Amino acid sequence: MGMEYQLFYWPSIQGRGEFVRLALEEAGVAYLDVARTKGGMENMLAALKADAHPSLAPPFLKAGDETIGQTANILLFLGARHGLAPRRAQGRLWAHQLQLTIADLVSEVHDTHHPVGIALYYEDQKKEAKRRAEEFIASRVPKFFGYFERMLTRPEHRGVYLLGARLSYVDLSMFQMIEGLRYAFPNAMARLEPGYPGLHKLHAHVAARANIARYLASPRRIPFNEEGIFRHYPELDEPAA
Amino acid sequence: MGMEYQLFYWPSIQGRGEFVRLALEEAGVAYLDVARTKGGMENMLAALKADAHPSLAPPFLKAGDETIGQTANILLFLGARHGLAPRRAQGRLWAHQLQLTIADLVSEVHDTHHPVGIALYYEDQKKEAKRRAEEFIASRVPKFFGYFERMLTRPEHRGVYLLGARLSYVDLSMFQMIEGLRYAFPNAMARLEPGYPGLHKLHAHVAARANIARYLASPRRIPFNEEGIFRHYPELDEPAA
Repeated sequence: MGMEYQLFYWPSIQGRGEFVRLALEEAGVAYLDVARTKGGMENMLAALKADAHPSLAPPFLKAGDETIGQTANILLFLGARHGLAPRRAQGRLWAHQLQLTIADLVSEVHDTHHPVGIALYYEDQKKEAKRRAEEFIASRVPKFFGYFERMLTRPEHRGVYLLGARLSYVDLSMFQMIEGLRYAFPNAMARLEPGYPGLHKLHAHVAARANIARYLASPRRIPFNEEGIFRHYPELDEPAA
Repeated sequence: MGMEYQLFYWPSIQGRGEFVRLALEEAGVAYLDVARTKGGMENMLAALKADAHPSLAPPFLKAGDETIGQTANILLFLGARHGLAPRRAQGRLWAHQLQLTIADLVSEVHDTHHPVGIALYYEDQKKEAKRRAEEFIASRVPKFFGYFERMLTRPEHRGVYLLGARLSYVDLSMFQMIEGLRYAFPNAMARLEPGYPGLHKLHAHVAARANIARYLASPRRIPFNEEGIFRHYPELDEPAA
């Protein structure tokens, strides 16, 4: 196919795979979103079993004879190869630390609609989801957003991105986090976002990047839906102001 | 102090810091467990605010002028410096992928006693915790343990450790996972463990390593308790066989 990369992820959701898609799109490299091709799901499920370095779950990425799993790990790999992370080891570790902090928040987003059990339906844990979502909005989003906003507004900080003037994969993930939370909790986000002008600006700058804007307008961008990580259940959001 | 490293973590629990402590102990390097020293807590809380690369939460590690946060990221750093990870980039990514998979399971362990809210007391979410713990024991532990056991028992695998004959930081973390689950869910683990002979053997080999055995017998090893990640609430375990 002449494709440099094969991405393996569930074909009908953004999910964790989207953090990888955004990096591949920004880098402008050719990749095949395997499970969205004919026979691709079988291919993906087989790779989960048979690969030399199999993943417990998607996403994973094939690059030549390497297979790399775990979202943050894939970004560590892609960031180094495509100028989406600092060159020096110290900067790379810092970028990765921020990415792992975003990953922690991603897990907490998922827990808002599945607090009691991953295997249970949302409908069977709605009451618990409501309690968890309330705490998430009241204290977890402010804790994480406050931290990232602080990184963007320290006196020594230059530029709109988390590491400074140059975009990194961390910014792409932060864009996706804001995008996803706006979808899932529109009322809460409308209230909260003005408190984080640095993050707001970062989001706008990422959205306006040529490769990202083109991607978001393309059919390759799967719309948010209620099967992914960011789900819009109006009853979990706060009331409109 | 002549200490090569300063570890910053809560002074009264094993928690996520323990995965770092085990790597430092195995490496046999001098480190200061800062928050366990006089005035150390104030020192840690100040560093969370003022450091050039602050963490959202402990653990974090100071090494010279670098500060590194996020457990898996700290292990990525220490693994490369102390022979606790493969030398080649591909092997390092694979080790890190396994570590991030263990980190996912660590989060799920925490959710067994705090499914509804991190800020709430366990006592206010006991019923939900029971539901979550049941699923955790019935399907999540077998899913993760099955995956790691498969890594240990593939035909091409050599040696008792996850990457083969040589110990890596991943094995230290897997040891801690098994140790913690035995503490939290003794009855369930007594039933489940015989199904994972490879993991059982890995655990025994790590426990018998000179530096680890010495550490476990020392006062530096904080006993498990009901403030950490692995908590023994008998009502969340299954009944004794």
